[in-house]
Amino acid sequence: MVSPQVQHARSPVNQVRYELLTLGDELLLGLTTNTHLAFIGQQLGRRGVQLSRNSTVADEATQIAAEFEQAWARSHVIITTGGLGPTCDDRTREAIATVLKQQLVFDTAIEQAIANRFAAFGRRMGPNNLKQAYRFADGEVLTNANGTAPGLWFERDGRVLCMLPGPPNELQPMFIEQVLPRLEARGLLLDREAYVQIRTAGIGESALELKLQPVLDRHAEGLSVAFCAHEGMVDCRLSSPSGRLSVAEIEGIARECSRVIGEDFTTYGHDSLARLTSDLLRVQERRLAVAETATGGLLANAFTELGGACKFFAGGVVCCSNDARMQLLDIPECLLLQHGAASAECAVAMATGVAEALGSDYGLAVTGFAGETLGPGGNPIGTIFIALHAPHGVWSRKLSYPGPRSAVKIRAVNAALDWLRRELIRERNGTVVPVRQTGIPQ
Amino acid sequence: MVSPQVQHARSPVNQVRYELLTLGDELLLGLTTNTHLAFIGQQLGRRGVQLSRNSTVADEATQIAAEFEQAWARSHVIITTGGLGPTCDDRTREAIATVLKQQLVFDTAIEQAIANRFAAFGRRMGPNNLKQAYRFADGEVLTNANGTAPGLWFERDGRVLCMLPGPPNELQPMFIEQVLPRLEARGLLLDREAYVQIRTAGIGESALELKLQPVLDRHAEGLSVAFCAHEGMVDCRLSSPSGRLSVAEIEGIARECSRVIGEDFTTYGHDSLARLTSDLLRVQERRLAVAETATGGLLANAFTELGGACKFFAGGVVCCSNDARMQLLDIPECLLLQHGAASAECAVAMATGVAEALGSDYGLAVTGFAGETLGPGGNPIGTIFIALHAPHGVWSRKLSYPGPRSAVKIRAVNAALDWLRRELIRERNGTVVPVRQTGIPQ
Repeated sequence: MVSPQVQHARSPVNQVRYELLTLGDELLLGLTTNTHLAFIGQQLGRRGVQLSRNSTVADEATQIAAEFEQAWARSHVIITTGGLGPTCDDRTREAIATVLKQQLVFDTAIEQAIANRFAAFGRRMGPNNLKQAYRFADGEVLTNANGTAPGLWFERDGRVLCMLPGPPNELQPMFIEQVLPRLEARGLLLDREAYVQIRTAGIGESALELKLQPVLDRHAEGLSVAFCAHEGMVDCRLSSPSGRLSVAEIEGIARECSRVIGEDFTTYGHDSLARLTSDLLRVQERRLAVAETATGGLLANAFTELGGACKFFAGGVVCCSNDARMQLLDIPECLLLQHGAASAECAVAMATGVAEALGSDYGLAVTGFAGETLGPGGNPIGTIFIALHAPHGVWSRKLSYPGPRSAVKIRAVNAALDWLRRELIRERNGTVVPVRQTGIPQ
Repeated sequence: MVSPQVQHARSPVNQVRYELLTLGDELLLGLTTNTHLAFIGQQLGRRGVQLSRNSTVADEATQIAAEFEQAWARSHVIITTGGLGPTCDDRTREAIATVLKQQLVFDTAIEQAIANRFAAFGRRMGPNNLKQAYRFADGEVLTNANGTAPGLWFERDGRVLCMLPGPPNELQPMFIEQVLPRLEARGLLLDREAYVQIRTAGIGESALELKLQPVLDRHAEGLSVAFCAHEGMVDCRLSSPSGRLSVAEIEGIARECSRVIGEDFTTYGHDSLARLTSDLLRVQERRLAVAETATGGLLANAFTELGGACKFFAGGVVCCSNDARMQLLDIPECLLLQHGAASAECAVAMATGVAEALGSDYGLAVTGFAGETLGPGGNPIGTIFIALHAPHGVWSRKLSYPGPRSAVKIRAVNAALDWLRRELIRERNGTVVPVRQTGIPQ
């Protein structure tokens, strides 16, 4: 086992060893997915730190203690999740206190916060809730605005222990608002984003790499480049771990890259396609409606998930039957009989139909076969038709995705969002082609 | 560290120590969520085994080797995921071969399978794909019907190593079709389900426990009971780890429990509410349509996710504007003005409106506030109205869920599905109340 000498906290952040312990039988039994690793890994990654490992063990005091003891010996920052609740299987606090030889002391401020929370919900605090009011004698408390279990913070000899509650809606704001600033103040994280991220859509990883090669070659010295493909999108991360290039210089290179990428460039940073498209709709004061078959409600959900969507999102129709297509979207029966529901013609009729039914400027439609059964007319599974009805025209496009149903659905949603994004930008820039046509653009 | 003596494979399965190593920088950087832990944990749990631990480390040969060496020393079955691909950062195969002192040998059968797969997709195999054609000299191959990387299987001294590819759509069928039967054949898993699971909806964990207490007390000897609450549903698992009770006896107790639970009992086993409701609709030859605001498309998606939904699911409407409610669902403007969109009245009008628009027997509607902004009329966030239009009447119901938006949405979907399930069962059993009424049943 690697057992590095623990260095002082002021060492460069990429030499700080971070470790995550996720505790709970429910994770090992697969009753709950471990979302903490993805959330904390991503947050730390943005600040220049890669978690060195994540271990998940059961709610069992000796196992927790053994695991923590090893982690505390080999790493600088240990983050634990779970096991801080009021019930008898919540053993993290006590198990770790034993290893640290720390007394647990009753904290009346925590008790008051728990009592206030119960009062606000009109419920009475049980005696077992008082278990949550204990903290390490030499430790601090991370307040919890969304639950009863506070987080705990402990430092010794330049090492940090940070214990977080298990529910994601309690852990996540606590991590962003209280943990990141503390780590930053101690020099254990960068005080800024570690990389400049360029997001793209509609271009593959190797095609993007090829396109960017001349720019990246010109600035090769001191520049680190990482590509990351996910669900039909590719991100490119630029950084300078050696510090040879300044943030302003990296941003300059990123701007050069985005010019080379052209329309496939979506944004700098971390915004999703749904967020970018929503912002364009809002700013351009355009309304959208969607009609979907293959994506089954996920396209509508991409917008409603964001909050405040009713300002620009009129609504959606999920049509699984020709009745629905004819009744709600006014699609002629003869079109459905001639071309079928999974066709470019039907996609166009759905996009126009939903835009007209809901009085929207834009109509976005997805139809096709996401599932396991073979489509009629020789169309294999994963054949998707998307269509966009815009104030200046209507187009449709045939796409093909291999893979399981859930992956096909997400890629189809992203392809539809990306297409709308491009059209909104063309409209904003006055580069639209004001001709009504059906066909495959580009 | 606990370092148990490795016992022979024929020991009782709950003494077999299983360990999962999930490998990949993308997991530690939060680019991919670790779904393997949940999937494998659940599959093993159903066969009487709880994973003793899961570790995630980076794609780095010395770290993989160190981690595997420890695991191989302390556990009986080691499952690894990831790092079997064709690129230079796929290092699992080589790192583990070093620890096992196993030669990697080129397997022409694997080469042929990879070549066939490329040919089927009309692509040419690159030279780096040949890396995937190596297996351990004394090992076996798990074929991969959904990708190029085969799984690897290796045994020595009663210990098992099973290496699986990272993509879930490749790993999951391989695990179920090839790994579980091999583990079962070696006595490392139960050859049947480890517990009888009773699923419920609409009743809390402590209320369920209280209700079942008399039955469980009567059969206390040899019976193990575990409750598991998730998203508005509670499962109860009955087993007899000592073997004192036979499967038939446990099933008898489960039947007693289900009678006591009454309408809140949903099923034995693992079927979801969407699956159960779909089966009832199919068997009773009823058609459904849905209308939703707060759940934003997820209610429709619950049905379309299953495949073959078009047989009973006419479609859905996601309405984020009064325009959509009036245009698509024929809801009178005066109703919306008087009661607002988040009201029992609007929910009822949506359910009836969508059933009538799509010529369906049942209409299910969800409206309310799932988001962060405060609702009008003093309704706090998490106030949800669901309504059900059935051939024999229409009802609405007000629900209240604390928590973040995504949790409120899932609970609202489950509440709506559960209500439909109950009505379909009442209809099947001829216990419907044939009166048109609006109010809260039960």
